[in-house]
Amino acid sequence: MDNCDWCSLSEEDRRFQLYETGSWSVFLSDEQDYIGRCILVLKRHCSSLSELTDDEWGELRDLICKIEVCLKTVLGAALCNWSCLMNSFYKDPAPDPHLHIHVRPRYDKPVVLGGNAYTDGEFGHHYALNKSGAIPVEDKEEVFGRLKGWLDRFPFAEE
Amino acid sequence: MDNCDWCSLSEEDRRFQLYETGSWSVFLSDEQDYIGRCILVLKRHCSSLSELTDDEWGELRDLICKIEVCLKTVLGAALCNWSCLMNSFYKDPAPDPHLHIHVRPRYDKPVVLGGNAYTDGEFGHHYALNKSGAIPVEDKEEVFGRLKGWLDRFPFAEE
Repeated sequence: MDNCDWCSLSEEDRRFQLYETGSWSVFLSDEQDYIGRCILVLKRHCSSLSELTDDEWGELRDLICKIEVCLKTVLGAALCNWSCLMNSFYKDPAPDPHLHIHVRPRYDKPVVLGGNAYTDGEFGHHYALNKSGAIPVEDKEEVFGRLKGWLDRFPFAEE
Repeated sequence: MDNCDWCSLSEEDRRFQLYETGSWSVFLSDEQDYIGRCILVLKRHCSSLSELTDDEWGELRDLICKIEVCLKTVLGAALCNWSCLMNSFYKDPAPDPHLHIHVRPRYDKPVVLGGNAYTDGEFGHHYALNKSGAIPVEDKEEVFGRLKGWLDRFPFAEE
């Protein structure tokens, strides 16, 4: 755990934190291959879904509802792809994963940020693994501001 | 819903049903790109995780725990990749998805079935999207028998 990146986040790492509950933090992903892609990170070190406590499992449900409504309302997502994988931790000979969940919003029409239109060219299919997740910093800031603005205004919208 | 494949399963479709709870059915997937790959299907028509009832969410947790222990114990999985996507329903102009969850067990050593050794060549990385999921029918029967045997013996192992 001492070496776990998710257990030792700096202020800078939290720059794109969108939301938090007692047990979970939500960050806008560095990878914006699907605009609004986020990561839900458990605040304590825990290796799998099977080891979540009752409270953590309950909060996860509220969070999924909230984030799904947010991505649909703010960005026009048609659906969300949820995944809990943790593969990269297993490159280590002594894997010690930290539970996190990816959400990729999927779009049947382009998302426009500033002057740029982002198209989900794989809509109706599995998300792409090799798509660039780099977007201009001002577009990332705009996504962050729009999502955080909604979450701050409606923190208990789904509770 | 009348046209939903998951709402109108035949006896033949249930040939590889491994387990069920009040709200969920578990099937061995036709695609065995990762040996023991399963699909958890909600018994009622429902389009997203956000719409699960309290009971369905609670049972999902028990099921994740049970299936993860089963895949690790019976097949030697190192971890499980969980995903809730539902993309293919959105090829339809009027999408009406039926909630289901994929679980792909991942392996740091080969799984041997009969005389065949199956290697997870992408271990430590995202699951492959283009890997053949076809295995000999006798190997599929063996996986099914081993997983179902464990689940039948320990139906309440994690409750």
